[in-house]
Amino acid sequence: MRVETVRDPGLRDRRAAVVRVTQASICGSDLHLVHGSVPAEPGVVIGHECVGVIEEVGADVRRVRKGDRVIVPGVVGCGDCEPCRRGYPVGCLTFLQKVYGFSSELPGAQAEFVSVPNADVNVWPTPPDLSDDQVLFLTDILPTGYYAVENANIKPGQTVAIIGCGPVGLFALLTAQLFGPSTVLAIDRVGYRLEKARSLGAVPIDASTEDVRQRVLEATDGQGAHAVIEAVGAQETVHLAFELVRTGGAVSVVGVLIQDDFSFPMGTAFMKDLTFRVGLVNVARFIPTLLPLIRSGRLDPTALISHRMPLAEGERAYELFDRREDGCLKVVLRP
Amino acid sequence: MRVETVRDPGLRDRRAAVVRVTQASICGSDLHLVHGSVPAEPGVVIGHECVGVIEEVGADVRRVRKGDRVIVPGVVGCGDCEPCRRGYPVGCLTFLQKVYGFSSELPGAQAEFVSVPNADVNVWPTPPDLSDDQVLFLTDILPTGYYAVENANIKPGQTVAIIGCGPVGLFALLTAQLFGPSTVLAIDRVGYRLEKARSLGAVPIDASTEDVRQRVLEATDGQGAHAVIEAVGAQETVHLAFELVRTGGAVSVVGVLIQDDFSFPMGTAFMKDLTFRVGLVNVARFIPTLLPLIRSGRLDPTALISHRMPLAEGERAYELFDRREDGCLKVVLRP
Amino acid sequence: MRVETVRDPGLRDRRAAVVRVTQASICGSDLHLVHGSVPAEPGVVIGHECVGVIEEVGADVRRVRKGDRVIVPGVVGCGDCEPCRRGYPVGCLTFLQKVYGFSSELPGAQAEFVSVPNADVNVWPTPPDLSDDQVLFLTDILPTGYYAVENANIKPGQTVAIIGCGPVGLFALLTAQLFGPSTVLAIDRVGYRLEKARSLGAVPIDASTEDVRQRVLEATDGQGAHAVIEAVGAQETVHLAFELVRTGGAVSVVGVLIQDDFSFPMGTAFMKDLTFRVGLVNVARFIPTLLPLIRSGRLDPTALISHRMPLAEGERAYELFDRREDGCLKVVLRP
Amino acid sequence: MRVETVRDPGLRDRRAAVVRVTQASICGSDLHLVHGSVPAEPGVVIGHECVGVIEEVGADVRRVRKGDRVIVPGVVGCGDCEPCRRGYPVGCLTFLQKVYGFSSELPGAQAEFVSVPNADVNVWPTPPDLSDDQVLFLTDILPTGYYAVENANIKPGQTVAIIGCGPVGLFALLTAQLFGPSTVLAIDRVGYRLEKARSLGAVPIDASTEDVRQRVLEATDGQGAHAVIEAVGAQETVHLAFELVRTGGAVSVVGVLIQDDFSFPMGTAFMKDLTFRVGLVNVARFIPTLLPLIRSGRLDPTALISHRMPLAEGERAYELFDRREDGCLKVVLRP
Repeated sequence: MRVETVRDPGLRDRRAAVVRVTQASICGSDLHLVHGSVPAEPGVVIGHECVGVIEEVGADVRRVRKGDRVIVPGVVGCGDCEPCRRGYPVGCLTFLQKVYGFSSELPGAQAEFVSVPNADVNVWPTPPDLSDDQVLFLTDILPTGYYAVENANIKPGQTVAIIGCGPVGLFALLTAQLFGPSTVLAIDRVGYRLEKARSLGAVPIDASTEDVRQRVLEATDGQGAHAVIEAVGAQETVHLAFELVRTGGAVSVVGVLIQDDFSFPMGTAFMKDLTFRVGLVNVARFIPTLLPLIRSGRLDPTALISHRMPLAEGERAYELFDRREDGCLKVVLRP
Repeated sequence: MRVETVRDPGLRDRRAAVVRVTQASICGSDLHLVHGSVPAEPGVVIGHECVGVIEEVGADVRRVRKGDRVIVPGVVGCGDCEPCRRGYPVGCLTFLQKVYGFSSELPGAQAEFVSVPNADVNVWPTPPDLSDDQVLFLTDILPTGYYAVENANIKPGQTVAIIGCGPVGLFALLTAQLFGPSTVLAIDRVGYRLEKARSLGAVPIDASTEDVRQRVLEATDGQGAHAVIEAVGAQETVHLAFELVRTGGAVSVVGVLIQDDFSFPMGTAFMKDLTFRVGLVNVARFIPTLLPLIRSGRLDPTALISHRMPLAEGERAYELFDRREDGCLKVVLRP
Repeated sequence: MRVETVRDPGLRDRRAAVVRVTQASICGSDLHLVHGSVPAEPGVVIGHECVGVIEEVGADVRRVRKGDRVIVPGVVGCGDCEPCRRGYPVGCLTFLQKVYGFSSELPGAQAEFVSVPNADVNVWPTPPDLSDDQVLFLTDILPTGYYAVENANIKPGQTVAIIGCGPVGLFALLTAQLFGPSTVLAIDRVGYRLEKARSLGAVPIDASTEDVRQRVLEATDGQGAHAVIEAVGAQETVHLAFELVRTGGAVSVVGVLIQDDFSFPMGTAFMKDLTFRVGLVNVARFIPTLLPLIRSGRLDPTALISHRMPLAEGERAYELFDRREDGCLKVVLRP
Repeated sequence: MRVETVRDPGLRDRRAAVVRVTQASICGSDLHLVHGSVPAEPGVVIGHECVGVIEEVGADVRRVRKGDRVIVPGVVGCGDCEPCRRGYPVGCLTFLQKVYGFSSELPGAQAEFVSVPNADVNVWPTPPDLSDDQVLFLTDILPTGYYAVENANIKPGQTVAIIGCGPVGLFALLTAQLFGPSTVLAIDRVGYRLEKARSLGAVPIDASTEDVRQRVLEATDGQGAHAVIEAVGAQETVHLAFELVRTGGAVSVVGVLIQDDFSFPMGTAFMKDLTFRVGLVNVARFIPTLLPLIRSGRLDPTALISHRMPLAEGERAYELFDRREDGCLKVVLRP
């Protein structure tokens, strides 16, 4: 992983656009690339969270033009195929690469410029009353957190447990409040993360010192949580999620899990009659939901920004992020 | 309307209970009785919102006993018939009178004692950690407001308009927050009610000085509200609700409307492709949802208590409530 | 109402298309125009149900070309505005006239040629394996009937009553089977319509000789229907619908109701805790649902064709349709 | 496995009942006991599907009496605890053993008499117009099949694939029709089962001779099925289910899976953004849905009865069932 000067991407075709990046951020899944747990093309520009300004548009682009401030959702689609029309660009039949920053077919957003295919469907105008900070996380991690919550099927008055208070867990925690739970239990081992969870309205449970199962049972009249959101992505914590949930509840897993021989607690799921959800988020589908909440002030994603650094210091940023030190949550990079 | 000494109600049968009332409150629908807009039996004890302590139970009562603190839902059902089993005591086939305080068959709750039929299904234990104040409104007006909100089918990020900020409108406003709207618009003509709405997180619109249609359009990018809750109960405001809602939205009417030749904006509903909901609330169905929210502190129904008076001053209480003066919202009566 | 030679419509702009009509049909709402109960521009070409072949396309049309067989949904939208993007062309902010055949802005489909605005979103390819007969009713009346059923919120095992067995009532009946009801009760006064209802799997109730309320109660263990679909469009039958439904049920009204002072049984709706739905159908939204059912043979809309006539005999066709004689259900016109 | 004379079970307490069994049937999960893949107490009476006549009731039983014909759901609950009140007896906190025929605490139904705990909630009256044959499968396998279908979240017009056409797969197939799919694809390797699937309206795919993946893609315009129901219960077929489903779809597993280290295709589930459901069925919850369908003739569960034998020939019956020969589907035993 290093900062390099690369050729500016050009317009790929008449429907494409080039965006000058004004802010980008680091996502936990970028770390998977760095650590090699998710394969990536050597030398690829990484990153899939950015906002910027339209630098150039192809002749057939209708909805944006040079100079427009835009949000660039991290997942792209052609907009025409069956999955795209149903709202599932993650299943796009036309574009093989659906997420920025994993291959040279769709180079990433932690750069000065990013090339956007089919711009009419793959950028979203930034409302003039909002800052780049406020909309940056709409490009991936905020919809990811929200989608995990939606998948958990929380109803007003219920108790939800969130395993893992890294950035995605905290975005889930932030948006879980939109579904009216009586209590959000936040489980982690890192002090500053638990403290952040508490400040966002959750009841923290420190897995390094407390008996998590016992605490969850006590908080739920012995029934277990109505829903559990697993935001770690490990077999052990997925199994824990199934233990913590009550009969008839839901387990929602968020995170990049690419293993096809994952150890799954099928017997527990069967006996408890559970719903299980996991999925790569279809980012754009959630912008009409989340944007008005940011505009009205009900949702403040900037609460999760812990560091701001120039893009040139990207290597240091990744180190910081990886070590989970210095209160690191989201790092914003300025090209 | 006057305070009188009446015979203490006895146990009606082996499944009944008598509750010593510790707190009761006045509901807008009680005023319908006082004004004659809803017919009531002469001399009936009115009131359908109370909490208390079990004084006596019939031999077949299994779930409560003398001395238990209880919540007494204002709507009763036999628990066995088809509608009761589906969760609709308002359609109970066994009990003709389903709400306390409208006929001598089921005398009301603004009294020292109230007789509860089939106590196993018609009282709910008060959790020891909650005060009478905190649970009192679970008996009717809090579920009524919540149900109106549930019927409005609000999704995260949407804008909801509430017409009328009397007690039921304010309880709808309080519970609307459980569904994650970006904005709640609160419409009324009375200053202190609008002030209360603002303090509970809504954007107030004063219908006595502002152009309501214009304000709602401005707040919704010209589309109208996703959902409108009508909490007045008049033909004029029901028509207004249909004007304020956007295509494909929902109108939820809350309040006691007993007229079967109500002027309805069918053409508007047709052209806008709307859902319309109205209904007497099945109180008990919502207690498992609302009680945990009160216990965890996310919902504070006591914020709506404006006055406390002895039951003996009931006449003065009704006057105060009826005149909408002195900041009157909910009046709690102590026998 | 008469057949006339009119100027062929041209392309209105670069996004438009002209369709040569191969089949059109008469809809009950056309009769509203003929009878003057819905206002129409004098001299307008009427009709909003047709299929045909693309005759000409504007330069910017991408998804269809000359020679393509197409379905022409009766409701059009711009495809770009907020309601269109939500799937509600009936609320389109760009096109004032959303249904063919009511004004010269959007002349009708009972003609040799019809001009389609924004063809990329307003026509749908006819699958090669299907005949014109099979897809013709997808343009309006089949989605209308289906939407009324969807609005009735029928669950497997429930009983649904349909008031009115004219064409739209029968299409509701046909598609109600898709939701697994145990029983469909079909109410009308015309013998051949009741006979058709029976042949499509319903239990017919003849309102001219039977006590409808009594029959519905007997068929539902005294509870009333779970859902009632009103397919007449009169105040009397809307009131009947509210009488026939059980506590907690749904009433779905289908038909062109443009009156904004409609007598509504609000008291009954309140006491029974009901959902009410009415709306102009967003035709295109339902084609992906209904088309595969026609292709697999589960849905046969041609069962409702009673007459076929040349367009030139349009006047006689309308007479026949209006008089409800000769077993008339749907009349197909060939230009 | 053998037929033995055992002591008649008595009444366990004042809320219990004893049912004289008139018909019982063999379920695939009984085979798990026989084969040892699910542990059972030695010497236990097995079976959890039976209907009969009330022989004796405890003093506190209110809803049934001696001589009543009853359906005995295979899953029992106390009716009072939190999971029971939510409709989840499988999570009952009071009764440790929730399914008949796995331990001596709750001896099974393939016997002359069966002892039912808390009879008011654990038997269901047989309607006088229905035969024992018609209601027998309501006790387990019909609700199990239906629940798998409900969990698959099928919408009208969609394509569903069912892997495995044993009895439970065929009951899923039968009830899938209640959700209006355009096509049901039925996958198996046994000829008579595929033939049965075809006769019930499905498109059979023979996995022993055909390329299942290819066939499913061809039948779905290359998208995969909207929903897949896995009715085998093996790791291999669960993996196949995830391959056959389209992006955004659902996989519903039905069958007794008790392994807590099950190989799960997490990466595929993540990339396709899927919902996964598995669970022991809460039988009684589905009787109000399914019973009216049997009464109206829309659902005929007797179509799956292949053999009838006296209980005394139970050993032969199990052999037949286990070998999947002689067209064996459901075997009905008469004590």
